[in-house]
Amino acid sequence: MDYILNKENEIYYECGWSSDNAVFLSLGDNRYVITDGRYTLDAKEKANAQVVESKNLLKKAKELILKHRPKSLKIDPLNWDENSYKELSKVVRLQKRPYMSHKKRMIKSDKELEIIQKAVRFGAEAFEAFKKEIETGIDEYELSFRFKEKLTLRGRRELSFEPIVAINENAAKPHAQVSDKILQKGDLLLLDAGLKYCRYCSDRTRTVFIGDEISMSKRQKFKNKEIQKAYDTVLKAQEAAIKAIKVGRPIKELDKIARDIIQKAGYGKYFVHSLGHGVGLDIHEWPYVNSRNEIPIQNGMVFTIEPGIYIPGEFGIRIEDMVMIKNDECHILSEEI
Amino acid sequence: MDYILNKENEIYYECGWSSDNAVFLSLGDNRYVITDGRYTLDAKEKANAQVVESKNLLKKAKELILKHRPKSLKIDPLNWDENSYKELSKVVRLQKRPYMSHKKRMIKSDKELEIIQKAVRFGAEAFEAFKKEIETGIDEYELSFRFKEKLTLRGRRELSFEPIVAINENAAKPHAQVSDKILQKGDLLLLDAGLKYCRYCSDRTRTVFIGDEISMSKRQKFKNKEIQKAYDTVLKAQEAAIKAIKVGRPIKELDKIARDIIQKAGYGKYFVHSLGHGVGLDIHEWPYVNSRNEIPIQNGMVFTIEPGIYIPGEFGIRIEDMVMIKNDECHILSEEI
Repeated sequence: MDYILNKENEIYYECGWSSDNAVFLSLGDNRYVITDGRYTLDAKEKANAQVVESKNLLKKAKELILKHRPKSLKIDPLNWDENSYKELSKVVRLQKRPYMSHKKRMIKSDKELEIIQKAVRFGAEAFEAFKKEIETGIDEYELSFRFKEKLTLRGRRELSFEPIVAINENAAKPHAQVSDKILQKGDLLLLDAGLKYCRYCSDRTRTVFIGDEISMSKRQKFKNKEIQKAYDTVLKAQEAAIKAIKVGRPIKELDKIARDIIQKAGYGKYFVHSLGHGVGLDIHEWPYVNSRNEIPIQNGMVFTIEPGIYIPGEFGIRIEDMVMIKNDECHILSEEI
Repeated sequence: MDYILNKENEIYYECGWSSDNAVFLSLGDNRYVITDGRYTLDAKEKANAQVVESKNLLKKAKELILKHRPKSLKIDPLNWDENSYKELSKVVRLQKRPYMSHKKRMIKSDKELEIIQKAVRFGAEAFEAFKKEIETGIDEYELSFRFKEKLTLRGRRELSFEPIVAINENAAKPHAQVSDKILQKGDLLLLDAGLKYCRYCSDRTRTVFIGDEISMSKRQKFKNKEIQKAYDTVLKAQEAAIKAIKVGRPIKELDKIARDIIQKAGYGKYFVHSLGHGVGLDIHEWPYVNSRNEIPIQNGMVFTIEPGIYIPGEFGIRIEDMVMIKNDECHILSEEI
């Protein structure tokens, strides 16, 4: 297979190593990773590919292509800037293959599944550890900082993404920014966060009630009846979608099952995003769990199920778990710990 | 002027607002910012442009182009993926203008200079605040975490980039990763970090001796004579380059002045990067201060001067300050505080 890659995670997937300045080339049986002098030592130790050092990755890639003269070269046109694409097209016929690495990476190996399970476990443990750090009287910034302290073990682990920490009406914005809003007793607190373990991501959301006791469980009791009704609806939608996961079923049916429940409860227009997304080396990858994706559910897939209800100016609720499909069964990863 | 932009900082520069999913279009006297439903409310409050909501930014951009029918449209081919570029080229003749926003943003307004001065001041203060948190017996991870705590005021401010915190031989890698190496008395500690204020970046490097007292000043006394010799050489190179800054002078001459001093001291091959880079909304932007850039030094420029000596397996030294050119004078920003 003749193809070229330039994204970190895509390169790592191929050869077990990557840097922020690297190109991977598969040319027949030859596998090259081109990188600059800052990284060659590290690459030679770790990369399962021939390491080629160059200050100009594109120029070196063109040289290698001219040396091997493949008939054509597969490339993802979404990953390359117009300029680099044009340069490559001068030396070889390019075959556009959008999402080609996403397609490959969608079905995880047993080893990948093991790593992901651990990542999710560590993520869930970080939610529990953070629980003890939640105090009324501190703001979202401080909450977020303490959360990240637990997620990263004070910088020893990477985040999958910048956590969302949102109180009450701030939680109604699906992409809420952390603010100086102060946490008070009786508040709703939405927490969406993940970490990386061996480069694989975890992702989890809990929406919790700030009472005398705080729990990271999905069983939550809110004082406000309207919030409780919405919460129970989201939970019901999540549980129904997870229960419906079956190998061979088109993945879009999961979105419909969750959406129907939320719609019937009268919140249809407040569920403003799709049901979920694949998770692996990228925090968002294939398969996307939306109303259009016809792809059948398959062994080796890992994705989130995360319905939500967002009432602008009032509150937002989302419950998210990661599931993995293995041996024709669906496993919810660290749902409760 | 008819042009199109898709990078956050480039869009922010044009209209005072941006999001991670937006396109800016200047078509004659019309200025549009296209973004999706998550961001339109915020955009309408803050953007100095007509806000257009769309789920498909590219499609909407094409519609607006077809409505206004410009003769051609300026675009930076390095910023657009091949696919999007091709789509746009179907509706208008594209004129390639690499780095067009960098060129514009290279000369800062007085208001921008004021913001940058504050950013650098806050950055320098964070170095001082962190000084009190440095302890022997803790590792680079912990040092880095405490440093970020000070730089971000526990998450209230953004970093310009992930700080470099490197002890002794780790400092010899210009892009050192934080490790579990433990700080001990008598060590050398390299600290390279910056923060954002009103979206503008600061950038600063100090290399300090871990004695009974720790100082963030550029006057450092190391016990090891070889290290002291290298340190004094770097400092001399930095001071000479800064002294040579003069409006009208080709910027590459600064690199030569610093490099000659390091070469003469016998460390030529250990100064492995260029002398500096512009700083603004991006942490690395125009003008680049290297051996090839012929551009003359001009009022309104802001850039770093950061020579270094890196002896593999032994130690690394870098001293970095930001300078600004205003009223034909060079100002070193918060060199000592």
